[in-house]
Amino acid sequence: MAKPPKEATIPTDPALNPASGSGASATEGAETQSKKGAKKAEAKAKKEAEKARKAAEREAQQAASGSGPSEDLAKENYGDITPTTTISAERVNLRKIGEEYLGKTVKVRAWIQNARMQGAKMAFVELREEGNWTIQGVVSASAEGKPVSKQMVKWIGGLKLESFVAVEATVQKPLEPVKSTKVSGYELHLVKCYLVASAPEVLGLGLGAASRAVGSLAEEEEKGETASAATAVEGLSINEGTPVASLATHLNNPAMHKRAPVSQAIADIRIAVEDYFCEYLRAHRFKKFHPPSLIGAASEGGANVFKLPYFEKEAFLAQSPQFYKQFEIAGGRKRVYCVGPVFRAENSNTPRHMTEFIGLDLEMEIEEHYHEVMHMLEGVLLHIFKGLSENYREEIELIRTIYPSEEFLLPKDGHEVRLTFAEGQALLRAEGPPEFKDVKDNEDMSTPQEKALGALVRKKFGTDFYVLDKFPVDARPFYAMPDPANPEVTNAYDFMMRGQEILSGGQRLHLPHELEAMIRRKGLDPNQPGIKEYVDVFRSVGVPPHGGGGIGLDRVVAWYLNLPSVHLVCDYPRTPKRLSP
Amino acid sequence: MAKPPKEATIPTDPALNPASGSGASATEGAETQSKKGAKKAEAKAKKEAEKARKAAEREAQQAASGSGPSEDLAKENYGDITPTTTISAERVNLRKIGEEYLGKTVKVRAWIQNARMQGAKMAFVELREEGNWTIQGVVSASAEGKPVSKQMVKWIGGLKLESFVAVEATVQKPLEPVKSTKVSGYELHLVKCYLVASAPEVLGLGLGAASRAVGSLAEEEEKGETASAATAVEGLSINEGTPVASLATHLNNPAMHKRAPVSQAIADIRIAVEDYFCEYLRAHRFKKFHPPSLIGAASEGGANVFKLPYFEKEAFLAQSPQFYKQFEIAGGRKRVYCVGPVFRAENSNTPRHMTEFIGLDLEMEIEEHYHEVMHMLEGVLLHIFKGLSENYREEIELIRTIYPSEEFLLPKDGHEVRLTFAEGQALLRAEGPPEFKDVKDNEDMSTPQEKALGALVRKKFGTDFYVLDKFPVDARPFYAMPDPANPEVTNAYDFMMRGQEILSGGQRLHLPHELEAMIRRKGLDPNQPGIKEYVDVFRSVGVPPHGGGGIGLDRVVAWYLNLPSVHLVCDYPRTPKRLSP
Repeated sequence: MAKPPKEATIPTDPALNPASGSGASATEGAETQSKKGAKKAEAKAKKEAEKARKAAEREAQQAASGSGPSEDLAKENYGDITPTTTISAERVNLRKIGEEYLGKTVKVRAWIQNARMQGAKMAFVELREEGNWTIQGVVSASAEGKPVSKQMVKWIGGLKLESFVAVEATVQKPLEPVKSTKVSGYELHLVKCYLVASAPEVLGLGLGAASRAVGSLAEEEEKGETASAATAVEGLSINEGTPVASLATHLNNPAMHKRAPVSQAIADIRIAVEDYFCEYLRAHRFKKFHPPSLIGAASEGGANVFKLPYFEKEAFLAQSPQFYKQFEIAGGRKRVYCVGPVFRAENSNTPRHMTEFIGLDLEMEIEEHYHEVMHMLEGVLLHIFKGLSENYREEIELIRTIYPSEEFLLPKDGHEVRLTFAEGQALLRAEGPPEFKDVKDNEDMSTPQEKALGALVRKKFGTDFYVLDKFPVDARPFYAMPDPANPEVTNAYDFMMRGQEILSGGQRLHLPHELEAMIRRKGLDPNQPGIKEYVDVFRSVGVPPHGGGGIGLDRVVAWYLNLPSVHLVCDYPRTPKRLSP
Repeated sequence: MAKPPKEATIPTDPALNPASGSGASATEGAETQSKKGAKKAEAKAKKEAEKARKAAEREAQQAASGSGPSEDLAKENYGDITPTTTISAERVNLRKIGEEYLGKTVKVRAWIQNARMQGAKMAFVELREEGNWTIQGVVSASAEGKPVSKQMVKWIGGLKLESFVAVEATVQKPLEPVKSTKVSGYELHLVKCYLVASAPEVLGLGLGAASRAVGSLAEEEEKGETASAATAVEGLSINEGTPVASLATHLNNPAMHKRAPVSQAIADIRIAVEDYFCEYLRAHRFKKFHPPSLIGAASEGGANVFKLPYFEKEAFLAQSPQFYKQFEIAGGRKRVYCVGPVFRAENSNTPRHMTEFIGLDLEMEIEEHYHEVMHMLEGVLLHIFKGLSENYREEIELIRTIYPSEEFLLPKDGHEVRLTFAEGQALLRAEGPPEFKDVKDNEDMSTPQEKALGALVRKKFGTDFYVLDKFPVDARPFYAMPDPANPEVTNAYDFMMRGQEILSGGQRLHLPHELEAMIRRKGLDPNQPGIKEYVDVFRSVGVPPHGGGGIGLDRVVAWYLNLPSVHLVCDYPRTPKRLSP
């Protein structure tokens, strides 16, 4: 027994298809197998499984009516879990199964990733835990002295995909390594199996489709496509090509979208980016704080701000923690950072935009020059990139099987690439596409300009990460510090990844009279609501020079991995069209 | 030279008053000094300082008009900082000043905590950096060969409190330890001093008042009191008693409120609580995620929810990450946590309530029993209390000089105190105040009941931290799992600190038909907007049993330290009456 099923008899679950790339199992699949052979085999397997299920149903009915051909001696060992169900074996996580458990009986809790009958007396299941830890489970009614009945085997073989089970099993070595599961050197021989929570007959999104690259990014399609993708995925053979589900279908089926190993890998990398950010800043004596989301006035001019009734007044949702970071500096905190949501009421339906996103923000005192801040920001981002590259190889490679990307190029140590805005525009004029022959040094860059410049920088300097410094005054908000040597540009910068902005920052005006003058130059009134409260802080005490920056968490992850959209990174993306789930 | 000024001649700055409790200096002050003597001395010092300032002004005017009595040979060494100002000495943080810097020239950047003339040729300043690192600075025009002029001394002696300066100075040992500063064994002999940012003539809140316990907690008083507190603090002698400022005055002067060492200590402890929370959960394989703040429907019944226009639709602000934590579990993440703002549109003006606050939330799969979750929550909180008690002694003691508190009592290791709700009510009936003689087992507790029970538990079990388990079904939301042994109570609990709730949690219903039945029992419709999307997730896949809890970050800090209000903990508290700054 325990010989793993041959590739050709492998099942209807799309997650096992190498082409679907669902985790480690996908890359280990039988790549030599022809599509035709597979199709045939798969059709046969399907037929068999269907036959077996029907037989099991018949038998179960007979058993229930007391007219069964044989008494079920194992009826205590399977079925729906109850409050009195007990499995007394040692609980082991799938990732821990190894030589020391060989021959032992263990307790496992896992999802049914696949289940099928092999003849009438044997069933194979694939069990999954913690993202993509999968193992083959076998149950057989033919073994002597085992408390397994035919009815039990059939019940297990008919379990619905993505149900959750609790299992007692002995750990055995398979005759050949199991190619379709991550744990290939061991398999589980089931002696008890209880259904903790059943999945429905039809999944809204199968694990196979959830594990493929998203198709359409357009939210408009969401209505029609959900249903068709659902039936299509479940009904189709993997070898005819698991259907591609749209981003909308993914997001409308959060549980299945998140269960795909690729989603879990992206989520894990997102956590790592945030953790590396905090770790680096804590090590550099930054202190965390929490700015408010609810504010009393639209702070930065009033455009693109969400407004809401607030008891007898009105409130706004903060577009950035900018003012509050500066209040912390005024409050003597020297170096601060924060991680939290910011809100933009912007009707932008692009793969770069969300109406709510997580900002990684910092602000610090400047001692001599604002490049101290720039250096800190380069430092924290390089720390993040280094951490990912050293500790998240497996996740990155897994994601690449689904979303291919070239390695993210970094500048040589200590040779960070910094261009001034004017240098960038000059490079675009000289070597960029013809449409950018006349770009101006005092006008902000468009997204296509940024991307073209990113390509030029990659070619010239061999890096996907660089800084664009000294933005023109007209492209920056009123709190940006002008360059003392050239008041038409600012001590403010953007950081770029693969030609797209991921960070905006700079030195801020810290003297109240200079701040007031710039506010007026921008056509605003230093005493208007929302701005007065801000300027008042600088009037109220002496505030040292300071600067900072804000990083878009999802953009860093998306552009590092070359994903098609930040909506694949954010846990629950919010767009003008999406507020749910 | 360099003998520190005698206590009796000490200055007008309220921050130096032992009674004001502003950091280490406060507890080291001359407690033996009589109030009367101090008053007299202080008045004398004030007069002297005023005389000196006037003389300095006269001289400065004479110097400016070229008719000065003496040329200012030090004019390059002081004044407003300019882009070309340089101090080439080694930059040293005040906390690093020690034996190895004795006799060396260093660069320091700091706030002027105090400045005063001593005669016409000498000035003393108190410099502050990083919360409460203070050191005495001395500048004297009488030393031979030093580039210090009388004009420079007078300019330094007249610097406004809470201005920010850059200084070059040599580190010296004072003749006697300086009692009024945290660094008592060294002082700085200034040779250069540049004003980086000046404070105004009058502060809205002096450091002395900012360092005292807040007076009134009522937000209503905020208008009138700000001004009177401001002038009162600046004008009054510390020994007549630094005036008390209301909470509103504190919050209206964020920069000065935050500069007080007590505020910085509270902020540091708040960060520590959050960090310990995350550290413990990461070590237990929890994964972070970010729930959205903007949601498409009022999820938990619709009361107390902020609503806002959202493009052509409407949106709501999430009251908790509850549903999203559960979606993560459904998505196979096993154990998750999140830290972020939640919103309550509740018109509660109490020291316990805010309309926006930071929640520390977790959710995890349950393997056998929901007490696994309770145990994890006890574990993370005990980890926090242990961390604070071991590593934040200095901060706790500093805070206690201003907000006295008894030590926070913990249960003996492994003997956590858990009462059922019914046991708690029985204890109240038997041993509580007479008004609680008839409390019922199926009715939720009021705040006074909770506090009375907390006092009883402290007396009986010697702990300020305990769990109240098995709340009645009617006191819990629809997603709470009923106790299989007694369907009138739930597998849900509150955690209490000093008799006040800091955490609510429990096991959740994970099977869709049970969830639907409970939703109906609560008089809601499982298919109404906001609830349907939630139930759909449980219909869409098999979801294992799970539970969790949500901790109010500011409450943990406030009740641990016995502070009078969570508004003293939150960085920028939001209440029905406060949205700014």
